[in-house]
Amino acid sequence: MSLGKPNQRTYVALVHHPVYDKNHKVVATSVTNLDIHDIARACRTYGLGGYYLVHPIGAQRELTRRIVAHWKTSEGMAQNEDRSAALRLVQVSASIEEVIREIHDRHHLPPVVVATSARPRSPMLQPHEVLRGAEDSERPLLLLFGTGWGLVDDWIEKADGLMGPIWGPTDYNHLAVRTAVGIILDRLFGEPRYNCGEHGL
Amino acid sequence: MSLGKPNQRTYVALVHHPVYDKNHKVVATSVTNLDIHDIARACRTYGLGGYYLVHPIGAQRELTRRIVAHWKTSEGMAQNEDRSAALRLVQVSASIEEVIREIHDRHHLPPVVVATSARPRSPMLQPHEVLRGAEDSERPLLLLFGTGWGLVDDWIEKADGLMGPIWGPTDYNHLAVRTAVGIILDRLFGEPRYNCGEHGL
Repeated sequence: MSLGKPNQRTYVALVHHPVYDKNHKVVATSVTNLDIHDIARACRTYGLGGYYLVHPIGAQRELTRRIVAHWKTSEGMAQNEDRSAALRLVQVSASIEEVIREIHDRHHLPPVVVATSARPRSPMLQPHEVLRGAEDSERPLLLLFGTGWGLVDDWIEKADGLMGPIWGPTDYNHLAVRTAVGIILDRLFGEPRYNCGEHGL
Repeated sequence: MSLGKPNQRTYVALVHHPVYDKNHKVVATSVTNLDIHDIARACRTYGLGGYYLVHPIGAQRELTRRIVAHWKTSEGMAQNEDRSAALRLVQVSASIEEVIREIHDRHHLPPVVVATSARPRSPMLQPHEVLRGAEDSERPLLLLFGTGWGLVDDWIEKADGLMGPIWGPTDYNHLAVRTAVGIILDRLFGEPRYNCGEHGL
């Protein structure tokens, strides 16, 4: 298949396990309807290749599939064609490993896996570094977003790179994951005039 | 009072009326819990002066006040201090006019009112033009976001300026309002390296 533009071979995975809860315990969080919708609409806006919901529990994957399936019916499309167009990007997966395998199979190249974290660490990649990495290697790009209190350290370390917290001009960085995905996609793929024309799409 | 930095005298209003529904009828939409939370967290991240929920129906304003009040109690703070810090920014108002009066009273200057719309129009302001306008005049800045199918034309025309749709590299622009607020605040007040250092904060 054609390699496509960088955004077209970029994927978001919303990870419900393994993530931390507020007491730093590793848990599986519940799928929420708005995480599916809001993030699918952001992925569609920036022209991504797909959006994976990752959950180890079969019943949660089935629930997600049922929500998404509604929007693929003629009834769902008649109700809101734009919503339907976004939700067609959604796929469901049991683990991050499975997502990586699927993207690898689809593109015949393993994805560059970039984790995100609201906790500062080093080294952290800037958006243009993430893009340059994916462009130079011509590999697909997988962005991992943790629900709850964030991805476990193990995946932060195993990933090929890390994008750090989103800062405004304050020391507060507790955005909803729905909002964080939108902002990071905008920093990566938003209209070039907003990010210094370092990369045209 | 001190004028403060531009972000500190910027306000977001989430307008539940007057907005359009999908059939272009003027309606009042319902307050949703996640709009309160997600947008408050984004406003806190970018250090805004406040976040107004605008609803003409008293019972909806009361519901909003009750949700917000919980997070100001010691129980709410113990539950999640970060959430509580964000929700302290939330105020409730019956109309856009009332929001404008309150900001005027607080700053002794009328706000520059900037509407947002997912429907392209002209002229449309770029983020640096919005900021320059507020900086040059030293006036506060009020950003209006419509729920439902967007702010009525009347307010688009009455506002001092308009920020247009958020585009990625596609022709799809149907973001959730929660996501759109986050992205616009990031384009206005995000780390300077992402927006060409045209304005340092």
